[in-house]
Amino acid sequence: MLEITDVSAGRNGDANVGAVACCAPLVREPLDADAAELLARNIKALADPTRLRLLSIVAASDGGEACVCDLTAPVGLSQPTVSHHLKILADAGFLTRSKRGTWAYYRLVPTALDDVARVLGSV
Amino acid sequence: MLEITDVSAGRNGDANVGAVACCAPLVREPLDADAAELLARNIKALADPTRLRLLSIVAASDGGEACVCDLTAPVGLSQPTVSHHLKILADAGFLTRSKRGTWAYYRLVPTALDDVARVLGSV
Repeated sequence: MLEITDVSAGRNGDANVGAVACCAPLVREPLDADAAELLARNIKALADPTRLRLLSIVAASDGGEACVCDLTAPVGLSQPTVSHHLKILADAGFLTRSKRGTWAYYRLVPTALDDVARVLGSV
Repeated sequence: MLEITDVSAGRNGDANVGAVACCAPLVREPLDADAAELLARNIKALADPTRLRLLSIVAASDGGEACVCDLTAPVGLSQPTVSHHLKILADAGFLTRSKRGTWAYYRLVPTALDDVARVLGSV
C-alpha cells in the first residue's frame, strides 16, 4: 500500500515549540494567556495513546528514524490512521518528515519533547 | 456566589499518576499500550490553556493553595466553568481539593507534573 497522505513536515511546528521553549516552568511563574494557548496546542498533540506510542517507537528505531510502513504493525492500525497521527505530531513540531521514493520517514525533533517537559516540570 | 459544584478530590488520580511515574522516558523505551493509555489520559487533562493557567496560578498562590473564589478573575471565566476545569485537574491527580466552610481550596500535587515531565523528557 502506498503512502498517499499529504503530510507537511513540521508545519507550524517550529513556531509553536519555540514559544513553549521560551517559558519558565509553569509552577514557578504564572503562564500568560498566549503562552498557555501555545503550550496547550502542543500538549494536545501528545494527548493520545497511539501518538505517544508512535513517538516512542520512532525514537527507538534504528538511526532514530522510522518509515510509516514499519509503524502500522506495532500499533495495530491502518496506514491512513497512522499517517493521520504522524501528521498531527509533525504539525506540532515533534516529528520531521522526509519522503524518499515511495515512503515517508519520520524522525523525532530532539528538543521538542524536552521543551514541553521543561515547562511542565519543576526541575 | 456559592461553590456548588460537586468536586471529588483526586478521584482516580493517584492510580493514574502512579502508573505514569513507573515509566522510563518514552524516547528511551517504547511505551506499551497500557502505559500509553494512562499517560494520554493524564496529558489530556493538561491539554487546555485555561487548565494550564489554573495550575500555574495555584502553584504561585500564597502557601501553594488557592480558593476557587480567587481563580475566576485571573482567567476571566465564570465560577462553574473554573470549577469544571479544576475538577478535571483534580480527577487526573494534579490538584487536591479541600472544602473549608463555603469554599473549595486547591493545592498542587507536588510530584504529579514532574512525573509527566519525566516520561516526556529525555533528561
